[in-house]
Amino acid sequence: MKIFFVTGNPDKVREANEMLDFPGFEFEAVKVDLPELQGTPEEVALEKVKIAYEKIKKPVIVDDTGLAFNALNGMPGIYIKHFLSAVGPEGVYRILDGFDDKTGYSLTSIGYCDGVNTEVFIGKCNGTIVPPASKGHGFAKGWDTIFKADGLNGTFAEVPASEKNKISQRRRAFDMLKEYLKKIA
Amino acid sequence: MKIFFVTGNPDKVREANEMLDFPGFEFEAVKVDLPELQGTPEEVALEKVKIAYEKIKKPVIVDDTGLAFNALNGMPGIYIKHFLSAVGPEGVYRILDGFDDKTGYSLTSIGYCDGVNTEVFIGKCNGTIVPPASKGHGFAKGWDTIFKADGLNGTFAEVPASEKNKISQRRRAFDMLKEYLKKIA
Repeated sequence: MKIFFVTGNPDKVREANEMLDFPGFEFEAVKVDLPELQGTPEEVALEKVKIAYEKIKKPVIVDDTGLAFNALNGMPGIYIKHFLSAVGPEGVYRILDGFDDKTGYSLTSIGYCDGVNTEVFIGKCNGTIVPPASKGHGFAKGWDTIFKADGLNGTFAEVPASEKNKISQRRRAFDMLKEYLKKIA
Repeated sequence: MKIFFVTGNPDKVREANEMLDFPGFEFEAVKVDLPELQGTPEEVALEKVKIAYEKIKKPVIVDDTGLAFNALNGMPGIYIKHFLSAVGPEGVYRILDGFDDKTGYSLTSIGYCDGVNTEVFIGKCNGTIVPPASKGHGFAKGWDTIFKADGLNGTFAEVPASEKNKISQRRRAFDMLKEYLKKIA
């Protein structure tokens, strides 16, 4: 079964196929013009995948990623890209200066819809928000530089992709999707 | 001319009519289901008012309000409601603990569309982000408690509405809309 993945980034599709690793199921990129919505990660993924399905009428997934600070009860979450554009990783890190709790989690939401089944999967990866550090891995100018996942010896931008991908929020979301696909297959 | 105002809040319409104070023009509330979009205040107002016009095909305005921190280059801006829900005014104030610059501005964006003309007006009001203080005025549990506009002797939640409304970001946005309506009338 072919599942269309709303993205303009072929690397994301390749990575998703590696992560899914489920014979008979394969992702293929599709470009669909979707609104950027506000809301909880669940709400946003659900609404976006419904719109995507209405447009292409084929099994489809959408994804969103963010970084949540526990001291801020989950903010900035999916809004982090706007904060990064505004003040960069260093500025985003300093938002926590006034808070003792530096823990947080990265999250990836995947919305899936095939016309019959509609589901959202939220993969989370716990860790700590740290001062920017990068060895050029991952999203080397993004929040990967300020997020150290529990169990890794550095930020997502300091460790090789192979280490990150074993435990990442994205890995967990795709694992959840895979389990779900096994059930409904 | 009747201009429809997308809101479920009759108080907002009453206030808007007082602010407009322009014979021959009057706001009337209309309920339209609009998406909550991410983007700059300009982008969001423009997109929302276009959708609203497509749905009702009559002159219409939409509005959005936010609080921008200069140290964060405008963030959280229109996303502030999510931060308030997450950590309340005290938590939002503490986001600036690590920054010397406590200045900021409140903003109201108004999108206007009558099918021929489409415009966005951004009213801003400069001030300072301060520890929460309230005498129950304004949005007494919202960011009004942590915003002291330049020239006022307290936060928006400490001064009477009559004082706030003389200089508020909302007043300025409606003044811009009024000037525009005079031009196109």
